[in-house]
Amino acid sequence: MHRRVFIQNTAIASIGLSLFDSLIARGATNNSLHINAQRIEQRIFELAKFGVDEKGRGYRVAFTKGDIEGRAWFMELMKKAGLNPTIDAAGNIIGKRKGKNNALKPICFGSHIDMVPDGGNYDGAVGSIAALEVMEILNENNISTEHPLELIIFANEEGGTIGSMAMAGHLTAEGLQQKSQSGLTQAEGIKAIGGNPDNIQSCIRKKGDIHAWLELHIEQGGILEKEKIQIGVVEGIVGIVHWEVIVDGFANHAGATPMNMRQDALLAASKFVIAVNEEINSVKGTQVGTVGKLAVQPGAYNVIPGKVTLGLEIRDLDATKIEMLFKKIEHRASTIATNTKTKISFNRQPNAPIPALTDKALQLVINSTAKALGLTTKFMQSGAGHDTQEIAKIAPAAMIFIPSIRGISHSPKEFSTVTDMQNGANVLLQTILRVDTQ
Amino acid sequence: MHRRVFIQNTAIASIGLSLFDSLIARGATNNSLHINAQRIEQRIFELAKFGVDEKGRGYRVAFTKGDIEGRAWFMELMKKAGLNPTIDAAGNIIGKRKGKNNALKPICFGSHIDMVPDGGNYDGAVGSIAALEVMEILNENNISTEHPLELIIFANEEGGTIGSMAMAGHLTAEGLQQKSQSGLTQAEGIKAIGGNPDNIQSCIRKKGDIHAWLELHIEQGGILEKEKIQIGVVEGIVGIVHWEVIVDGFANHAGATPMNMRQDALLAASKFVIAVNEEINSVKGTQVGTVGKLAVQPGAYNVIPGKVTLGLEIRDLDATKIEMLFKKIEHRASTIATNTKTKISFNRQPNAPIPALTDKALQLVINSTAKALGLTTKFMQSGAGHDTQEIAKIAPAAMIFIPSIRGISHSPKEFSTVTDMQNGANVLLQTILRVDTQ
Repeated sequence: MHRRVFIQNTAIASIGLSLFDSLIARGATNNSLHINAQRIEQRIFELAKFGVDEKGRGYRVAFTKGDIEGRAWFMELMKKAGLNPTIDAAGNIIGKRKGKNNALKPICFGSHIDMVPDGGNYDGAVGSIAALEVMEILNENNISTEHPLELIIFANEEGGTIGSMAMAGHLTAEGLQQKSQSGLTQAEGIKAIGGNPDNIQSCIRKKGDIHAWLELHIEQGGILEKEKIQIGVVEGIVGIVHWEVIVDGFANHAGATPMNMRQDALLAASKFVIAVNEEINSVKGTQVGTVGKLAVQPGAYNVIPGKVTLGLEIRDLDATKIEMLFKKIEHRASTIATNTKTKISFNRQPNAPIPALTDKALQLVINSTAKALGLTTKFMQSGAGHDTQEIAKIAPAAMIFIPSIRGISHSPKEFSTVTDMQNGANVLLQTILRVDTQ
Repeated sequence: MHRRVFIQNTAIASIGLSLFDSLIARGATNNSLHINAQRIEQRIFELAKFGVDEKGRGYRVAFTKGDIEGRAWFMELMKKAGLNPTIDAAGNIIGKRKGKNNALKPICFGSHIDMVPDGGNYDGAVGSIAALEVMEILNENNISTEHPLELIIFANEEGGTIGSMAMAGHLTAEGLQQKSQSGLTQAEGIKAIGGNPDNIQSCIRKKGDIHAWLELHIEQGGILEKEKIQIGVVEGIVGIVHWEVIVDGFANHAGATPMNMRQDALLAASKFVIAVNEEINSVKGTQVGTVGKLAVQPGAYNVIPGKVTLGLEIRDLDATKIEMLFKKIEHRASTIATNTKTKISFNRQPNAPIPALTDKALQLVINSTAKALGLTTKFMQSGAGHDTQEIAKIAPAAMIFIPSIRGISHSPKEFSTVTDMQNGANVLLQTILRVDTQ
């Protein structure tokens, strides 16, 4: 399946869709440069000390004390690496390294260091620390690139890719007023980390402003580990649509109402949850569908549920496939409602991220670079959202995945091995060098 | 089905299981006595004025201001009817009317006037007001019964048949310390309505102390209305067992975790809810099984549910049938857990009310009395709990049901017609007179 995609990509690239076509055939890497794996691991542990709640759980949530302290620590390292870090209007941290030809557009790379509540130490952190590592290896080896380089740490990725959305010009005044997980509005939070929400448009990069964007990240799924693959080449970041689904039955006495006289909203909702699972699995592909939340009213042992509110999510790289699957689910819901004497209605939630495809030629550069380093690769989608989905709107963008052990993410159990981090950082480093020399 | 039960009951009664055998064959009623339907209806509306919350919803919850005021109003009416009301140690209101032979044990009847939050105006109220009506009709017609009569309004029926449980000698010191819906403990609540929890045993009636107990009540189900039957003769009050059911899956990223690598606790729980419904419906009878509550953790659109906690309830008149059904459900759960890579465990909840059978001969007296009044009848179980289930432990006890419109109960939409209330009260009156003359 993915092999076929690879061939297609080559075909597309060879007809000239990207700036990076000429790189694809080249296999050489700079074999004298090697990432310092020990330094990466040490910094993963150091960063993890910032943002721990009173129960000892990771809480480096954007705009909170832990985020602010973690950013200060990261900027200090950037300063030491001569990157002269600044904070843009959206609160993104940007460190620059000059190129031989500063008229060229910058090659940008990085990730984020904020986390979800009770999150792990690798999501975002690996890509951020590896990006810094790339800069330091270049410094230590006195290598000058043709293009200027930029290390970007985006603000509040976990709260809706806020910093990258602002940079791509899509953060609205309304979006700035929404509450973030920290309790502050996005605008207040951006101010708290040194941004300037009143002048948010000053951080916007236009199409063509960035030569290429690269992000290294943990997979957050279990596919690479299961298939024993070292590097994931991300073809795109899935679109996500959420629906609030309301099942209206009739609450009644659970003792006095015979089985055949019930309008049980939870029985209907249960059939719906199973139907979602069946329909998502009914077609080939990597689409996912989840009912992640469900609330029952009134919710007592002795009352037949009168109302259930649940959350449906569908993700895929293909927006039309999401709609096709939803139609099938909607059809099933209609039958379930009839059979259970209930009513099932759907409220599509606003601001659904549309699928974001990465640059096909950049994918192939990453793939051939990884192979030249002796690493196994797999073309795959990202089921999770990333800042790359925003930057892909304004620049050729791509992502490098490394395995997540047991596929666990957004959890203290999140883990990636030092070897995998080292592999990913080496692929990032060599990809940057190859993109630079086109 | 119910016809067959009727025949069985006659057979059992005829071999002498009850004090009331001799009454069964007699069909006569005192045709000069008639309940005042208008007075009943008016008092239903008057009582409804006590205990209304700030949103205008019924809130005559036991031990709250509305309950206390409603009880005072009811006792005033009892006083006017010469019943000399007193409050026992459990807070039960007891009004007495002398008989010709006060050495005989009393015939007791009544119900309760407390309600669930946002409850209706008929549950308990109909039986209480009809019991008072019986006393007044006897007064107005200068009828003396052989036995003394007692009108009993039990305390906190909705909070666990507390007053009747105390009278039957089963309210423990531990039970007295439990919180009631009012926020007070049962002991504090009983004090608030004039009882004496420190001397709770003084309210106990021993086996043989009560000649017969009769309770008129709304059905709270939709069977009588659906089948166009006027009077339900209650064969017993179902036993109720509750289980807390815990489904352990594994919470993971809903985008990055492929469908075939999930351990989705909500998918497993949904299959379980359906299995409960199927197993309860798989055998003949009037058993009911309900999953009335369900909570999902962590409960977000984008996280695969890691844990689901739900509440399973099974009710039936036959305790062994409840256990048999549970075994079938447990077996299904084991298969579901295996298929969904989850773990499903059950915690049986304590203090399960066991099935309470009413006195078979009293059932037949009610049935023949109703028929003599030209009313249609049906032998049926009570799916809801009632004070009668407690009094059945110490005295021959029976219940008369009247239709609930649309089967709605514990809701402001709860309703029974004046004609049905009148029918029920007339059956209560004539049954008392026939039980008295044995």
